[in-house]
Amino acid sequence: MRIEIICTGDEVLTGKIVNSNFSYISQKLEDVGLTVRWGTTVGDDRDSLLAAFRQAGARADAVIVNGGLGPTVDDLSQEIAARAAGVELVLNEEWLHRMEAFFQRRSRIMPPNNRKQAMLPATAELVDNPIGTACGFALDIGKARFFFTPGVPRELHRMMAEQVIPRLLARSGTSTAIHLKRFHSYGLGESHVDALLDGVEALVPDGSVKLGFRAHYPQLETKLTVRGRDAADVQVKLAPVQAEVRRRLGNFILAEDDQTLEGVILAALAERSGTLALIETFTAGGIAARLAHWPGAEKIFVRGAVARSRPQVWQAAGLADAPPEGELTAEMAGMVAAAARRQAAASHGLAVLIAVDQGDDRIDLGGSINIGIATEAGVVTRRARIVGGRDWVRLGAIELGLDCLRRYLLGLPVDERIDFEKQ
Amino acid sequence: MRIEIICTGDEVLTGKIVNSNFSYISQKLEDVGLTVRWGTTVGDDRDSLLAAFRQAGARADAVIVNGGLGPTVDDLSQEIAARAAGVELVLNEEWLHRMEAFFQRRSRIMPPNNRKQAMLPATAELVDNPIGTACGFALDIGKARFFFTPGVPRELHRMMAEQVIPRLLARSGTSTAIHLKRFHSYGLGESHVDALLDGVEALVPDGSVKLGFRAHYPQLETKLTVRGRDAADVQVKLAPVQAEVRRRLGNFILAEDDQTLEGVILAALAERSGTLALIETFTAGGIAARLAHWPGAEKIFVRGAVARSRPQVWQAAGLADAPPEGELTAEMAGMVAAAARRQAAASHGLAVLIAVDQGDDRIDLGGSINIGIATEAGVVTRRARIVGGRDWVRLGAIELGLDCLRRYLLGLPVDERIDFEKQ
Repeated sequence: MRIEIICTGDEVLTGKIVNSNFSYISQKLEDVGLTVRWGTTVGDDRDSLLAAFRQAGARADAVIVNGGLGPTVDDLSQEIAARAAGVELVLNEEWLHRMEAFFQRRSRIMPPNNRKQAMLPATAELVDNPIGTACGFALDIGKARFFFTPGVPRELHRMMAEQVIPRLLARSGTSTAIHLKRFHSYGLGESHVDALLDGVEALVPDGSVKLGFRAHYPQLETKLTVRGRDAADVQVKLAPVQAEVRRRLGNFILAEDDQTLEGVILAALAERSGTLALIETFTAGGIAARLAHWPGAEKIFVRGAVARSRPQVWQAAGLADAPPEGELTAEMAGMVAAAARRQAAASHGLAVLIAVDQGDDRIDLGGSINIGIATEAGVVTRRARIVGGRDWVRLGAIELGLDCLRRYLLGLPVDERIDFEKQ
Repeated sequence: MRIEIICTGDEVLTGKIVNSNFSYISQKLEDVGLTVRWGTTVGDDRDSLLAAFRQAGARADAVIVNGGLGPTVDDLSQEIAARAAGVELVLNEEWLHRMEAFFQRRSRIMPPNNRKQAMLPATAELVDNPIGTACGFALDIGKARFFFTPGVPRELHRMMAEQVIPRLLARSGTSTAIHLKRFHSYGLGESHVDALLDGVEALVPDGSVKLGFRAHYPQLETKLTVRGRDAADVQVKLAPVQAEVRRRLGNFILAEDDQTLEGVILAALAERSGTLALIETFTAGGIAARLAHWPGAEKIFVRGAVARSRPQVWQAAGLADAPPEGELTAEMAGMVAAAARRQAAASHGLAVLIAVDQGDDRIDLGGSINIGIATEAGVVTRRARIVGGRDWVRLGAIELGLDCLRRYLLGLPVDERIDFEKQ
């Protein structure tokens, strides 16, 4: 099945907004084993829209159109869809009532121009949008089935999952169940993980398990797309591959599926009624910003401090003595973590102290990262050097600090070498 | 002049990466008064690339192609460009030598597969890439001039600015100079600023000044594109409009052109040899993360603290007394700012203390933001309520805290009402 995407709107075409809806739609289709072959971006312009719909209708089997379903005069998708399909626009009473109820629930009167959103091409099938006034719809143009979706991301996401993807899977003849399993890791590069996982797809010989990656430094997402007759069959096929991925990537897997590194850390602390005190330097609040604002974190993240000079770090941790001279060491980070823990009366202390190279930012500028984790039981430390410019070092140090804390909380070694460190 | 963009590559088509190169190219063209009419996205596939090149060549006057210039087998842009133009690929000796020198400077031998990057269509004009091995080039396909650009963002950015845009402006017959003037503001919504600036374009009656916006909450960018005979003429035209924009937006303009809010704050502090101590709560390190990591900030940002409970906030600021009971107030923020300043021996103290509404995240969840700024001379405070969900409140509070500090440092009122606050 040949699938195309058409993104509409002047804001997207002129680059006022980055088109993340395109990548969202494409990824969601990939995740269920469907492949997009062509993407088109046009503005709010009748001639361009008509040409784009006709060209895609002549080439594709299915087309997803995004945007242009709003109430204003520059929202043209219904009008041009009707013209391209050679049918009239007619009022959809069902959607009109839905919109009136939508406004009523919010104690508002529906503005007259919203009525336009219920005008659909005569041959259109309504595609539900339970959280907005933009009505999705499907109809045939040329040889393709077109699916019209809203530009508002949360409405698009829900419509893709609940309405569009099931219809596409039905049309593609895949009567199979599909499941996406995701592993999040830190510390191994994409090509390294690819090599480590060589052959795991073949554990299910019928080709129903497909391996993929999505890198967003510093984390990497490893994806298994599994097809089966039904949910039970999918689980049977997934089980050996999943076990093998966990075995090969081991402690580097920091979370699975919708879990996150910060969620795993907060849950591990909450489980033992633990609390955290944090001291950071060049990461500049970046570690605190990953943990402290989540619901529930107000009971766990008791205090964080950011300081750049060694005397200020020592003072912020409540250390009365003057700091030692000489190169920054992991032992110093351990000492600071222990002091921060005591000062905030927390169960756990984390210190991430960084010595950044001197000089202007450049690709081979690095930083030495010293991490200390302290509890009543004592102190563990970790030292690593990361090279790649100021931002690269800062982002890497945030992730390394958080990941060391995760490892410590889960009883895993904190000093496993990562691909991003030098020496 | 009809301009199109073609983005190539499986990573973009499958959504593995969000296509920010498209919006970058489109914005840069808009900034010089050129408009993109159509965008196409295709994968690393010979048939798709050929079809995309031919279609754009039949429709457009100029086409910018992004990606596919690398050394690997899936980089197909040169090959398909040659086929679409009906010419051979020939080795460009000049580029080959440039690449060999590129590797030599890095004390490396050029791998044999890089030679492919010097194979250009026979009719191609070389378009310089001074910072990479991907050779840009231009040639005619159909009735359009095609410009082939690298996918690596920093290489693309430089090639657009130095090579592609000058060539496009020359082709478009605009022998004029073009200048982009930008104002960054916080606190006024896009439609409000649009209304405030009504008529400013007409101050230059020949239509050579164009107003535009780019919103990235919480900040708004207001852009003036000015055309003139030469740089001097541009400045003559810009002067009255620029003065009027500054007059109408007044204290809400926080920076211009490449300046940033954080840069303005750090410069204002550096100018008076000032230092900053910071206490924040629900913003969770987000204020520190905007300031503390910049080069030079290590001398200015002396200490920051993040805490969520009132007793921890008081302790982190070095206040010995138990905190007061009752609703969080701006006066409390002033007290905490003064204490934080004293404790870190800083010239300036900033406290941003937030009471977030109870309950699950929702669109009408709000937060009361209490800001205190302390110096030797005393304390000023600001209180505002922002509604729109946890992230909206957090991001708004970071910006409001920073903007109040900017206003204080520049001698401007800190309590001007902003559009995003309630009541």
